[in-house]
Amino acid sequence: MHTHETSTTFARIGRTNADFAAAIAAGDAATAVAETYTREARILPPGTPMLTGRVAITAYWQAAIDQLGVTGVTMESMDLQPVGEQVVEVGRATLTVGRGTQVLTGKYMVLWKVEDGRWRWDVDCWNLDG
Amino acid sequence: MHTHETSTTFARIGRTNADFAAAIAAGDAATAVAETYTREARILPPGTPMLTGRVAITAYWQAAIDQLGVTGVTMESMDLQPVGEQVVEVGRATLTVGRGTQVLTGKYMVLWKVEDGRWRWDVDCWNLDG
Repeated sequence: MHTHETSTTFARIGRTNADFAAAIAAGDAATAVAETYTREARILPPGTPMLTGRVAITAYWQAAIDQLGVTGVTMESMDLQPVGEQVVEVGRATLTVGRGTQVLTGKYMVLWKVEDGRWRWDVDCWNLDG
Repeated sequence: MHTHETSTTFARIGRTNADFAAAIAAGDAATAVAETYTREARILPPGTPMLTGRVAITAYWQAAIDQLGVTGVTMESMDLQPVGEQVVEVGRATLTVGRGTQVLTGKYMVLWKVEDGRWRWDVDCWNLDG
């Protein structure tokens, strides 16, 4: 990618991350997943086997909100690396549980892909630091 | 990548994974890391913050062997996706702890890169299923 193209890509990637965080904060896993993941996306979450596709991924995040009590997520990109037509992101994340009393820190690795005119997460692997 | 080139790449990737497993089984983290990771590789392990570079990554794996009692690792590629000059791998893994009495199952996502004439892990994120 050229420099100009790259900065546009990175801005769009930042927007997807912000939209995901806003939808999770609103307790709306369906919107979070529809706006963020590709149709055939895979997630590699800690504590459960790999899940594929938006239906399974929506169920995962809705359970995180309803059962684990996740009320917020933050993502901080540490590295955005263009690879061919895609981007690999490495970043730090926090998950807020309950009324903000518990903040879990972690990290993630995402393979980004353009689908339906939007930069989306095609593979999403993460874990917690402690 | 062309088909022919891709099959050669995938064979080389399989060899790196096999060499890593053999060195871990031998209790030799230094060889495992020198043969497998790029010089500036990053690992995103569960339970500890991100680590960068072979010195830190070797210390991590040596502690996994010496303190956690890891005696073996297996990796099974589920997907190898060429992206530009690199490859993203998604796979399943097991960690054997102690005398084979405990086998932990997990999954991983690796960004591969050629460095010093060898396919190596440049970013390595994983977690356990349970």
